[in-house]
Amino acid sequence: MAVRLAPPRGLLPVPGVRAATARAGMRRKAGDDVALITLGPRTRTAATFTRNRFRAAPVQLALEHLERAQPRAFLINSGCANAGTGKAGYDDAQRLCAATAHALGVGPDEVLPFSTGVIGARLSVDAMQAAARECVDRLSDDAWRAAAEAIMTTDTVPKGASRRLFIGGADVTVTGIAKGSGMIEPDMATMLAFIATDAPLADTPLRACLDTAVNSSFNRITVDGDTSTNDACVLAATGEAPLDPLRDINDERSQQLCAAVSDVMTELAQAIVRDAEGATKFVTVEVSGGATQKDCLEVAYTVARSPLVKTALFASDPNWGRILAAVGRARAEHLDVSRVALTINDVAVLKEGEPDPDYAEEAAARAMSGEEITISIGLGLGTHEATVWTSDLSYDYVRINAEYRT
Amino acid sequence: MAVRLAPPRGLLPVPGVRAATARAGMRRKAGDDVALITLGPRTRTAATFTRNRFRAAPVQLALEHLERAQPRAFLINSGCANAGTGKAGYDDAQRLCAATAHALGVGPDEVLPFSTGVIGARLSVDAMQAAARECVDRLSDDAWRAAAEAIMTTDTVPKGASRRLFIGGADVTVTGIAKGSGMIEPDMATMLAFIATDAPLADTPLRACLDTAVNSSFNRITVDGDTSTNDACVLAATGEAPLDPLRDINDERSQQLCAAVSDVMTELAQAIVRDAEGATKFVTVEVSGGATQKDCLEVAYTVARSPLVKTALFASDPNWGRILAAVGRARAEHLDVSRVALTINDVAVLKEGEPDPDYAEEAAARAMSGEEITISIGLGLGTHEATVWTSDLSYDYVRINAEYRT
Repeated sequence: MAVRLAPPRGLLPVPGVRAATARAGMRRKAGDDVALITLGPRTRTAATFTRNRFRAAPVQLALEHLERAQPRAFLINSGCANAGTGKAGYDDAQRLCAATAHALGVGPDEVLPFSTGVIGARLSVDAMQAAARECVDRLSDDAWRAAAEAIMTTDTVPKGASRRLFIGGADVTVTGIAKGSGMIEPDMATMLAFIATDAPLADTPLRACLDTAVNSSFNRITVDGDTSTNDACVLAATGEAPLDPLRDINDERSQQLCAAVSDVMTELAQAIVRDAEGATKFVTVEVSGGATQKDCLEVAYTVARSPLVKTALFASDPNWGRILAAVGRARAEHLDVSRVALTINDVAVLKEGEPDPDYAEEAAARAMSGEEITISIGLGLGTHEATVWTSDLSYDYVRINAEYRT
Repeated sequence: MAVRLAPPRGLLPVPGVRAATARAGMRRKAGDDVALITLGPRTRTAATFTRNRFRAAPVQLALEHLERAQPRAFLINSGCANAGTGKAGYDDAQRLCAATAHALGVGPDEVLPFSTGVIGARLSVDAMQAAARECVDRLSDDAWRAAAEAIMTTDTVPKGASRRLFIGGADVTVTGIAKGSGMIEPDMATMLAFIATDAPLADTPLRACLDTAVNSSFNRITVDGDTSTNDACVLAATGEAPLDPLRDINDERSQQLCAAVSDVMTELAQAIVRDAEGATKFVTVEVSGGATQKDCLEVAYTVARSPLVKTALFASDPNWGRILAAVGRARAEHLDVSRVALTINDVAVLKEGEPDPDYAEEAAARAMSGEEITISIGLGLGTHEATVWTSDLSYDYVRINAEYRT
């Protein structure tokens, strides 16, 4: 059950981007499980990948292709991650890129492969080749929503977001899609996400924009602390908008554009948490007053990851002792327990490390019973702050992860 | 449901140690919830406490008392952790120590308080005082088992272990009890454990023995990664055995004794994992071939803590991709994925980072269906190794932690 998350409506086409989907039959869930996204010839692409050292075959190959060429297409499948498949899996990915490139009339290095699904299984190469060829014949400007559906695994809702802005005298569009609902933890783009704009963004600001946006969105969510072998986030700028090239990230137009990219990525990242496996709550953990931002993040993540905090959230139980215990074991460099403040929504729980005299359990229980909960922690030591988003831990998380694959 | 764990039988009395239990009514579960353990006048005690920076009031007070005197008694209660209770909770613990000391005819600093249970609630001081006085009137040599039951919270089975050994011409006994089944993660003794011996162990080897034994037992288990605010492990040597004092940890007799202490603590630590909240499997994660021990521990803990690995274990699903993904994201300094080997029980899964050609899913599924599972990971880089014990993640973990307190 997703927490207040509807399928995306009205995803805006991005000039220079076309897409199509087809079915290869690797995903058990019905519908298409292969998506092809193509990019116009002026497109510049930046990408960021999982930091997991067991990188899936498509991640290895995508990195190699990106070193050699600017991509003209992304070939994505769900149902099979093509990870832990050794040399054979790498060869599979390479054959698929070559076949797709041939059908598109581009170079084999100009196709990037992405896979998501079960680790350890081989791709159905023949079925995927046929699906990719079908996609080539069916490319359209308006298939973002279909692509968002084709890349889902345990997701229950497709995820997409768009922004249109007017900069430098022209309309510019940013549209993105993402998938992910388990094995979610930052330390990199932590799922698959594809974001495109028609703005003419040069390589240096493109990279800066991607890094900044990822750091404040996908790198601020956690579902279960598990980082996947296949995660990737790609930002493509097709350059089709009638606008002078954006060469400097500090330029006002670049800033406006990158703010829109950050918006889209934050909406997608929050959608992943709202659709987290088994989630019944959407939880914002805000930490302020830290001596450093690293400390704030450390405290926020320790609270957001704690199974005991997450089961209390599931139970709508204002068991704030578990939050306090998580704060106390966080590996923050600076922590003075006598300065810690804790608020759940607008209910003050702790002030200066002691229970607030006005604390009323009933008010806290009411706050915890909502679907959107904000846990605010004040460290009282400085001016830094950090926010992360997480979900609760429910029976369904266990069911979904115990049943997946079986 | 505990995994192959029976209540302890025949816990051996330790000369110099007496105990009794009574009910103060703070724990919802039936039966006594207060235990008093007294120690003879020659006893030397070493203790280790949680590294959580939110230390409960009894932990703060116990540390202060230990600085000033050798303890003559431990006063333990379950049902209420007396944590997050501020100055008032500290005063409660102090009053209880003073009242108990008065009843025993010892100094107030000679009583150490220990509490376990819900965080944020105040102790029922009057009821606890009455219970402590009852205990003083009922002390016996043979109440270890009753004490093990009185300190339980979500534990389903009391935990105790004994060893008798013959050293330096005398019989010596080591007996210990422990409680814990959630909020379990090392970074300190991670629950309450009380171990006593009648050997005349001097302070320096006593401390060394405690630290060594804790590091290979309680600091090698994880249930949910949450470290409690109240954890403590205490080792008391009453000196009642007719044996020359043990002053040197390297002495052969000291080594024999400390091996027995380690044995008792390892049995207790494993019992905690076998009784882990909702556990249906007892899982040993062995990492060998590491360049450093720290790397081995990092990999072992990352696997042992992974919710995705733990739900796959619950489902008896040989989804080894999740193990591999956990190894890949571990913060080990040295990791070469092309050298990694993985075995589940005796089923080879990966060799040199690639799927083993003889791997058969059926054999792995059989291995995963047992109640005792060993995951062996070879890093192929050196000679270091580390073992940690963990449980699976089941519906019941969520149920127990969602319902606890409500």
